[in-house]
Amino acid sequence: MNEVKAPLRCVVLGCGVVGTEVVRRLLEHDADLAARAGARIELAGIGVRSADTARDPVVPKDLLSEDLEGLVDSADIVVELMGGIEPAKGLILRALEQGASVVTANKELLAEAGPELQEAADANSGSLLYEAAVAGAVPVVRGIRESLAGDRITKILGIVNGTTNYILDQMTTTGADFDDALADAQILGYAEADPTADVDGLDAGAKAAILASLAFHTRVYASDVPTEGIRQITADDIAAAKSTGSVVKLLAIAESFNGSIAVRVHPALVPADHPLATVSDAYNAVFIEAEAAGTLMFYGPGAGGKPTAGAVLGDIVDIARGQVIGGRAPAGSTYAQLPVIESGLVPSRYHMRLTVADRPGVLSELSSVVASHGVSIETVRQTPGDDGKAGLIIVTYSASQAALDAILADLWNMDAVEEVISVMRVEGN
Amino acid sequence: MNEVKAPLRCVVLGCGVVGTEVVRRLLEHDADLAARAGARIELAGIGVRSADTARDPVVPKDLLSEDLEGLVDSADIVVELMGGIEPAKGLILRALEQGASVVTANKELLAEAGPELQEAADANSGSLLYEAAVAGAVPVVRGIRESLAGDRITKILGIVNGTTNYILDQMTTTGADFDDALADAQILGYAEADPTADVDGLDAGAKAAILASLAFHTRVYASDVPTEGIRQITADDIAAAKSTGSVVKLLAIAESFNGSIAVRVHPALVPADHPLATVSDAYNAVFIEAEAAGTLMFYGPGAGGKPTAGAVLGDIVDIARGQVIGGRAPAGSTYAQLPVIESGLVPSRYHMRLTVADRPGVLSELSSVVASHGVSIETVRQTPGDDGKAGLIIVTYSASQAALDAILADLWNMDAVEEVISVMRVEGN
Repeated sequence: MNEVKAPLRCVVLGCGVVGTEVVRRLLEHDADLAARAGARIELAGIGVRSADTARDPVVPKDLLSEDLEGLVDSADIVVELMGGIEPAKGLILRALEQGASVVTANKELLAEAGPELQEAADANSGSLLYEAAVAGAVPVVRGIRESLAGDRITKILGIVNGTTNYILDQMTTTGADFDDALADAQILGYAEADPTADVDGLDAGAKAAILASLAFHTRVYASDVPTEGIRQITADDIAAAKSTGSVVKLLAIAESFNGSIAVRVHPALVPADHPLATVSDAYNAVFIEAEAAGTLMFYGPGAGGKPTAGAVLGDIVDIARGQVIGGRAPAGSTYAQLPVIESGLVPSRYHMRLTVADRPGVLSELSSVVASHGVSIETVRQTPGDDGKAGLIIVTYSASQAALDAILADLWNMDAVEEVISVMRVEGN
Repeated sequence: MNEVKAPLRCVVLGCGVVGTEVVRRLLEHDADLAARAGARIELAGIGVRSADTARDPVVPKDLLSEDLEGLVDSADIVVELMGGIEPAKGLILRALEQGASVVTANKELLAEAGPELQEAADANSGSLLYEAAVAGAVPVVRGIRESLAGDRITKILGIVNGTTNYILDQMTTTGADFDDALADAQILGYAEADPTADVDGLDAGAKAAILASLAFHTRVYASDVPTEGIRQITADDIAAAKSTGSVVKLLAIAESFNGSIAVRVHPALVPADHPLATVSDAYNAVFIEAEAAGTLMFYGPGAGGKPTAGAVLGDIVDIARGQVIGGRAPAGSTYAQLPVIESGLVPSRYHMRLTVADRPGVLSELSSVVASHGVSIETVRQTPGDDGKAGLIIVTYSASQAALDAILADLWNMDAVEEVISVMRVEGN
């Protein structure tokens, strides 16, 4: 059933953190990607401004080239990861005009010239995909473009800048003031030495323009988006928000209003039980209100080499499928057929609730029973009961079903154990 | 730039709540859908077992037919919303064998015969799409199939049954026991009179099989999935979970382990700060761990006529695009170009923080200033300060920027107002 197709020539322009990771995955997962795409995706070249810059040993030196136009001219798929306006824009237009398709993560360029690039793609029946440009690995561009294609979006609320979310989250959890939280973020690499683009909302503004263009089928540019950043937010503001059951988030907002659309970026109070309120650290999330779907949210890492590369690869496979077989996943790729095993064979963490005798030494007896089956205890929590009994909650590290069964059998046989009330697995770390 | 294509003939089999909503949207959004799909999608027939059953006035009586096979034979796209195994399975196979594509929301059938249907689709170069079958409007099927096509999934944790999530959420927030929470869910229509399929995890098991098949490219059937439901969960279990900083959720789990995969459904403890912990009411969410992407989550309504119909429509547009233009969005559809207006023209809720004189009558003075500009107050919260001053937080209902500016100007002019410390917008209801 596997159809044999000519390989698709893919060139990667830019070989920084994301570019290197894309190259790594194209090379290491060659066979897998071919099965999923319906044709081999051949890494035909890696464009760099200076061949000295791509130092990672995974990058094949013989594929490096400083002749970016020459690479573009030879490609079926151009992956632009250089950033900035030029030469990226000229190279993308050149690729599209030659009938190639383009994947880019360049939010700055898309927010300035997205409509022009899209029209060039349309005019030449090529694809222009940019999942990685908006919220890293969060698949919100595809969600809007495809899943919601039969629906009408009314509002988008996005946490699309990881740096500011990290800073606000720190201010919320530690009570720190803005300057201290920013300094921490800079030490940890979440914020740059010059944090202006993030902290003043410019990065979020570019992403808001891209999201609004997609969701409302309207040309929106970064210059259309008023942005207000988070520099002026104080620890007092955060505390006051908390006192009303809210948290402060920097939101990119696009909404339809009386047949028009409005786009903006500013900090806002969000109720603590809203799905956006729980987006912590440098994570991103986009919350969408649509006529039929109601409310949807897409959540994930907003940056980082590996997640961003994953989003780029998804776009590459998508283009390959479109060129080879009209957008369907290829026949024969559906089932690799891994063995399906009994769930009991997979170790799990367990939460056990017991009633035990309330006397010295019981905890130590119980712990040694658990340890004797090679299982470590994460926490034990004892609550006093009456009649000389105590409640006990034991949470274990990873244990096999067999080890758990053996532990339970031993526990039931102990004089000190009155009852094993319940056993539940623990998931999510 | 708009290409003119022959309309695609679409038939809908089954005209219950979801089917009626799909029919409504196909008819009402005809032009919109054509623009997005690249060809008109013509509703060519509605298959019902008895023409008496489709009573909604939106359903055109002349399109109703009890000749299901005849409808299938005339269609480019068959939308199966009847549920159950037969005749749905026979009709889907018949459609695929004739080269039509199929959209279905039938989780029971997919969990029993999904691989067989997929192979029939592959053999005939048709598409089989089923976004609505797993978690209603949550676009997780497309997320796995496309966004993660260049990645490797390692684990899936899904809240895929709204009934049980509602019951557990009620038990968590109100301290109710299982029986009472179930009774409430039945009164509110979240649970059926016979709740077995939901409460014992069978519905989640079918969805786990479908997700595992997709994520791991492996044939997994409902019969491969051991399921444990939530009947035995007590109020004490929930309280004990809370005491360790966790909540109890019914999870559908699929994971790769040493080159094999394991799939199961059971209640589990999830840390309270995990994104899955905040999925409340009858909402669904699927949390995915993948090699490159890290962690992603898709969240939304897991059931309901409109959300489910939205997911079905997304699949229909997807198939139409694939048949017409190789999976791309059609040229010319990208920009409808709505007017982009100033954000200040869109009303917003506001959160104002002030320092005021701590004397009787101030609250009433302030309230009448706000009201005089036509703005209603949602809450006022006063905190005692020192030196005869008080802190005040006012949260308004929706107000225009102009009204806000006028209110602020008046407030600054009041003797009782010492300072307006900050003004922030409120989002997310």
